Amino acid sequence: MLSLVDLLNRIRSGALTPDAALGLARAAIAEREGRIGAFAHLAEDRGEGAGEGVPGPLSGIAVGVKDIIDTADMPTAMGSPIYDGWRPRADAAIVSALRRAGATPIGKTTTTPFAFLDPTATRNPRNPEHTPGGSSAGSAAAVAAGMVPLALGTQTGGSVIRPASFCGVAAIKPSFRLIPTVGVKCFSWTLDTVGLFAATVPDVALALELLTGRPMRAAAPEPIRFGVVMQDFAGDPDRDGAAALEETVRALQAVGIEARPVALPASMAEAWAVHPVIQSFEARAALAWEYDHRRDDLPPLLRAELEAAQGVTAAEYDAARSVANRARRDAKSVFAEVDAIITYAAPGEAPHGLGSTGQARFNRLWTLLGTPCVNVPGLRGASGLPVGIQVVAPFARDHVALAAAARLERALSS
Amino acid sequence: MLSLVDLLNRIRSGALTPDAALGLARAAIAEREGRIGAFAHLAEDRGEGAGEGVPGPLSGIAVGVKDIIDTADMPTAMGSPIYDGWRPRADAAIVSALRRAGATPIGKTTTTPFAFLDPTATRNPRNPEHTPGGSSAGSAAAVAAGMVPLALGTQTGGSVIRPASFCGVAAIKPSFRLIPTVGVKCFSWTLDTVGLFAATVPDVALALELLTGRPMRAAAPEPIRFGVVMQDFAGDPDRDGAAALEETVRALQAVGIEARPVALPASMAEAWAVHPVIQSFEARAALAWEYDHRRDDLPPLLRAELEAAQGVTAAEYDAARSVANRARRDAKSVFAEVDAIITYAAPGEAPHGLGSTGQARFNRLWTLLGTPCVNVPGLRGASGLPVGIQVVAPFARDHVALAAAARLERALSS
Repeated sequence: MLSLVDLLNRIRSGALTPDAALGLARAAIAEREGRIGAFAHLAEDRGEGAGEGVPGPLSGIAVGVKDIIDTADMPTAMGSPIYDGWRPRADAAIVSALRRAGATPIGKTTTTPFAFLDPTATRNPRNPEHTPGGSSAGSAAAVAAGMVPLALGTQTGGSVIRPASFCGVAAIKPSFRLIPTVGVKCFSWTLDTVGLFAATVPDVALALELLTGRPMRAAAPEPIRFGVVMQDFAGDPDRDGAAALEETVRALQAVGIEARPVALPASMAEAWAVHPVIQSFEARAALAWEYDHRRDDLPPLLRAELEAAQGVTAAEYDAARSVANRARRDAKSVFAEVDAIITYAAPGEAPHGLGSTGQARFNRLWTLLGTPCVNVPGLRGASGLPVGIQVVAPFARDHVALAAAARLERALSS
Repeated sequence: MLSLVDLLNRIRSGALTPDAALGLARAAIAEREGRIGAFAHLAEDRGEGAGEGVPGPLSGIAVGVKDIIDTADMPTAMGSPIYDGWRPRADAAIVSALRRAGATPIGKTTTTPFAFLDPTATRNPRNPEHTPGGSSAGSAAAVAAGMVPLALGTQTGGSVIRPASFCGVAAIKPSFRLIPTVGVKCFSWTLDTVGLFAATVPDVALALELLTGRPMRAAAPEPIRFGVVMQDFAGDPDRDGAAALEETVRALQAVGIEARPVALPASMAEAWAVHPVIQSFEARAALAWEYDHRRDDLPPLLRAELEAAQGVTAAEYDAARSVANRARRDAKSVFAEVDAIITYAAPGEAPHGLGSTGQARFNRLWTLLGTPCVNVPGLRGASGLPVGIQVVAPFARDHVALAAAARLERALSS
């Protein structure tokens, strides 16, 4: 994989020019994209130094941009024929932030249609017979395949952390609205969260710091107190998922860190249960035009979701929002004794085939809570595919989530 | 003015067909629009019954849609040459809701560029030498001129309540996100709120009920306990504004309602003071593409605002957000003894000339708090122009705000 930190160090030392760093990404894309299918569109190569944006701390960094995120100079097709060739007038806020930092959006990465569950044709670089997950399929795959050092995704259920886990890359779903969603196709306005994919946790931390102007590599509590959460309400993990969490606890123990079990208050299970109500009700409004005018062009899972969503009442939604608000208040108590918790990033390895993008059941509570979540790569399941571990910290403590994840990443590799 | 309730009653009784109701709006537009300039674009008249949408409770209702709100079948120009002729692919969520309810978006109403402070050429129907206010200039003017019975606006500072006050129409800025902002050009994602304009408070209440699926004419506390808030931190009102609030207190007394003075906790003044920090920081991100790529096409006030916004730090923004969150929690205490409060909707009458859209200083606290606000028309200043009164209720108690406003409207007309 292309490490963001490594590339920037080499650029800073003069060992690599920004153009040459972009060239590494372009060469990798030329070599591997045909096999993976991570891109919906590739930017034209304007040639060395030709208009690759203002110089900045991310100069030389090629970025994959999920294709529900608006770009003024590339199409934004939402993974759907309804938006085939669609050209927004403006860049999304996060794309402007990338360009201001000197980064080069090098292409639009594949997304499931409107970031829901209908799969893409993208393949998992760790094993092309398996799904890369979704909905940010192309972004996870592009980083995993070493084609880009940074990619943007979005998560409404588990669309950042799950594909990161399946593809064996680091990723963060930051605190809700830390990265603006302006110019990102809306599915659910209380859930949609823009996230980042990169090779390692420090790569993700540096990118988030440069893009948000907040210190993401700032001092975290030392030692970091870890907790373990099982999320019983979300069902059982696969054998590989269960084994990965056990292995993580042992790896932390091996470096002197005792991860204590944390029991979640009942409101967390209730919040987990109402996530789909909130998502459906808001998707009904957010995708009303598509449903009313282009229903036949919607893929089957999304169409069925929106058909069912028409029956969700405002009263049900308002009640679900109350449950979510109560859980957000209670979330503080979850972190009363610990700084960060570890839990499953996904049930297990990436499912075989491209028929399903996997399940978001271990992700959706945290999306609803708005807490920062980091996928830590490093472990593998029985068939050799990656199995990630999810690190969660309190709302607005993204730097703690990243510090804890980096600590865990080191423990897993030691 | 065209009353929504009256039109729907006449349609229900058979005295008026939906097509004839639309015809009333079209005739009024043909007669008055040249003098007012409330529309940026008018929908083609497809002829009686030709594709005016599905039948529904708002069939026959012509709606003005502020031109920062996406429409698939009409341009959406944001009041700016940067978006001249721009055609979004999809309708905004609220436009879909209108169409599903049977309403006919009859045109795009003028907006200040990107809904900031640079004026439009729209004239106040009460006196064309005066501004209609902004940013939802065309929507307030179109309702006031009797051209449409319903119009959509947005408020980030005071862009719904202020023009409603200046033009002498009813309006609601509902609780934050009661109406989705999906498909509405973003200025500030924590402040932007979609609102409604109509002739009277019951007209607004019925529209909000039909568009949100929530009972907005439901039973409110009886009697409604009114409070009076002066907002000293926002400076003094004009003589007309002060007189209007005094007259309102007297009018309530005359019908046996004692409006008690309510002192706001200190956090309200602090929240009022940080509103511009939040707005600027978010506008910088939301309008980054326009600022980076089309700066010369930005109007002077917005350009200066965005230039200044580049200097607002993430730390300042985060601190401002904390202040706002504290004030939102404290807002409950404001309503401990009262159900609704009355306060200034604007400093006074609409300013003379079209050089300024007036001031939002009596509105921005409530926008930041996310509380429902209703403009109650009925009073006039020294020069005969309307002066509105703002009614505010606790978050998510929109039906209480509307009930209190309706009670006040009746008191003012009795």
